[in-house]
Amino acid sequence: MTVQEQARKARTAALALSSATRAAKDAALLAMADALAKAETAILEANEHDVSRAEANGTTTALIDRLRLSPDRIAGMVEGLRELAALPDPVGDVVRGWSNANGVQVRQVRVPFGVVGIIYEARPNVTADAGGICLKSGNAALLRGSSSAAESNAAIVEALRAGLVDAGLPADAIQLVPGPREVTGELMAARGLVDVLIPRGGAGLIDTVVRNSQVPVIETGVGNCHIFVDADADEQMALAVVINAKTQRPSVCNAAETLLVHADIADSFVPKVLDALVEHGVTVHGDTRVAAYGEIIPAVEHDFAEEYLSLDIAVAIMDSLDDALQHIRRYSTGHSETIITESQRSAARFTAEVDAAAVLVNASSRFVDGGEFGFGAEIGISTQKLHARGPMGLPEMTSTKYVIIGSGQIRQ
Amino acid sequence: MTVQEQARKARTAALALSSATRAAKDAALLAMADALAKAETAILEANEHDVSRAEANGTTTALIDRLRLSPDRIAGMVEGLRELAALPDPVGDVVRGWSNANGVQVRQVRVPFGVVGIIYEARPNVTADAGGICLKSGNAALLRGSSSAAESNAAIVEALRAGLVDAGLPADAIQLVPGPREVTGELMAARGLVDVLIPRGGAGLIDTVVRNSQVPVIETGVGNCHIFVDADADEQMALAVVINAKTQRPSVCNAAETLLVHADIADSFVPKVLDALVEHGVTVHGDTRVAAYGEIIPAVEHDFAEEYLSLDIAVAIMDSLDDALQHIRRYSTGHSETIITESQRSAARFTAEVDAAAVLVNASSRFVDGGEFGFGAEIGISTQKLHARGPMGLPEMTSTKYVIIGSGQIRQ
Repeated sequence: MTVQEQARKARTAALALSSATRAAKDAALLAMADALAKAETAILEANEHDVSRAEANGTTTALIDRLRLSPDRIAGMVEGLRELAALPDPVGDVVRGWSNANGVQVRQVRVPFGVVGIIYEARPNVTADAGGICLKSGNAALLRGSSSAAESNAAIVEALRAGLVDAGLPADAIQLVPGPREVTGELMAARGLVDVLIPRGGAGLIDTVVRNSQVPVIETGVGNCHIFVDADADEQMALAVVINAKTQRPSVCNAAETLLVHADIADSFVPKVLDALVEHGVTVHGDTRVAAYGEIIPAVEHDFAEEYLSLDIAVAIMDSLDDALQHIRRYSTGHSETIITESQRSAARFTAEVDAAAVLVNASSRFVDGGEFGFGAEIGISTQKLHARGPMGLPEMTSTKYVIIGSGQIRQ
Repeated sequence: MTVQEQARKARTAALALSSATRAAKDAALLAMADALAKAETAILEANEHDVSRAEANGTTTALIDRLRLSPDRIAGMVEGLRELAALPDPVGDVVRGWSNANGVQVRQVRVPFGVVGIIYEARPNVTADAGGICLKSGNAALLRGSSSAAESNAAIVEALRAGLVDAGLPADAIQLVPGPREVTGELMAARGLVDVLIPRGGAGLIDTVVRNSQVPVIETGVGNCHIFVDADADEQMALAVVINAKTQRPSVCNAAETLLVHADIADSFVPKVLDALVEHGVTVHGDTRVAAYGEIIPAVEHDFAEEYLSLDIAVAIMDSLDDALQHIRRYSTGHSETIITESQRSAARFTAEVDAAAVLVNASSRFVDGGEFGFGAEIGISTQKLHARGPMGLPEMTSTKYVIIGSGQIRQ
């Protein structure tokens, strides 16, 4: 089956989903959860094949860790689907509404996008998460997973589709898009058949999709996040936030990657923070001024541009808030940027001038997360300015439609 | 100056605009209005050159009409800028906000996009409108007008920039992007420098931008709008709405282009509507079943796909609501679709199943308009599903940013 054929089937399914009630969708989510739990053995077996193949191909341990499923991880996917069923349905929400002077009634109502394509990398749990989020928001899902997880994804999708059928919804509401590399290109060219593409993965994947897609894209995820410790920061607070943002979970997009320290506080703060970072196993890449305070790896341009996603951090001394703002303007990926300061004036300038999905004052960037925001489910963190910016919950997976009701009014 | 250089200057100006107060922006809009009024003679002279050149090139009368300025049209542009000054500023609006259990405060705040590129066709009044709307929403504007209006646009932008300088805002907040065809391509490639592109014009222009741009695009405007007259429609109401939607202003995107009539009402309604359409100067392109009721031009496939933007209409008979829904699914551009019906059930199905920016029951599609919606200003009508759908006012010209304020909170 070609991508176009799959997309046409998805459109037909999307039409049915668009008028499915919340009760019908929730019943399907629970049936999908049950089917997934029942298929545990089959999924683990399929995953074992994927893992063996990856090991034979010499895949890195980190990637294999992301690829590998366990009974616990499957239980997590099952639980995720059940939690989705408990969340409110965004479809049908009236965003705003009014009556015109002539009695015409206007309502702006949330509606599903239609067909959503998700392009993602190794982690097979994304298959269940993304399929569930799309279903709850009334969208048909075309899931383009990585070939390394092909068998795991196929087994998961088979279970999800069985759940859909059990609940009386069309199986084609969730489809895996298999096949060679070129298939991704076909998905990106399916304008008019696919309504939105969401790439989830590394910077390379996201950049490819953004540059080549003719289907509208929601860009997620790359976070080269900075912390600026201002001249009059509370040093204890700064230490706590830096260590938390860098080390609490270094592999995620809202983790800190660069620390900027105001020159006026450097003599006191930099030695302390270097000690604390080393104590937490962090490798410090510092500029020449940082080198004066301790043993570090000399930082090159690349260190300030990169999202490490590891226990590494780039550190630089800034002569002023203006220099820090300029550094962030140059290297930020527009995800989450933090200032630690006791100065109202610095906080106001930083939050106004930094152009990012989230700007934080005296708090860890690890809070920029759909779960922490109380969204209940998250398809990713948007770093673009159109449609949704920041953590994307269920409402961000919808569009709107104006419904206009009259009694024969015409325009004069 | 290259497009890249212009975009860099725009980014610097955008940074200043992003923290400009409403008072500063409104003062600039009023100064721009004054400068435009003062430049009337120079603008009309420049426009005369454009018009003469277009006439010499054998441009169509319709296009020359759109290109030609008059004291009245300039007064309209001046008035438009003054009206913008009176509208509320969307920037800084708090969309939502909450406090986390740990005391971290989160606010989602409206912010400008940054740099907005507008690519548009002959009408030079768009130059002042778009420049004003971008300024009010805190965005720097790169205005890529048509070469046929080059001198008019240059004269208008000169006046707008003089107004900006008078009011103490950077002139580079509004720039004309002149030069050959390739320049449009450079604008579409300026990812990272330009935040959003909005094409305004015909289907060809919009399609080119949507397919080729690496900068995120907001698609506006093409409206192949249908009216379905249901079996139990009020015939008088149907006649009034059809004539209004088709003839009140046929050249705009929310005008009706295709009339679908339920077979059960055809014997009675079609003869009446054909008479009324002919009486209003409309040329009817009908299918074979319509031909049984009067003299019409036989409709071909193309007639149902096209946005006439003229006093032409395609007419077809439908055996059921389902057939009408299927016809609309096939040919709709997702702008505004109308049903005339007394049936609650038909109205509910139509509004639920038709996938468009606006769906109307018993009212003219001419109401789908920023002015009619009370938005005060409109940059266009979005027919895409991401970000904004339907008439776009000032809030739709902004993004949002999460501002997160803590007192040292870290994630556990």
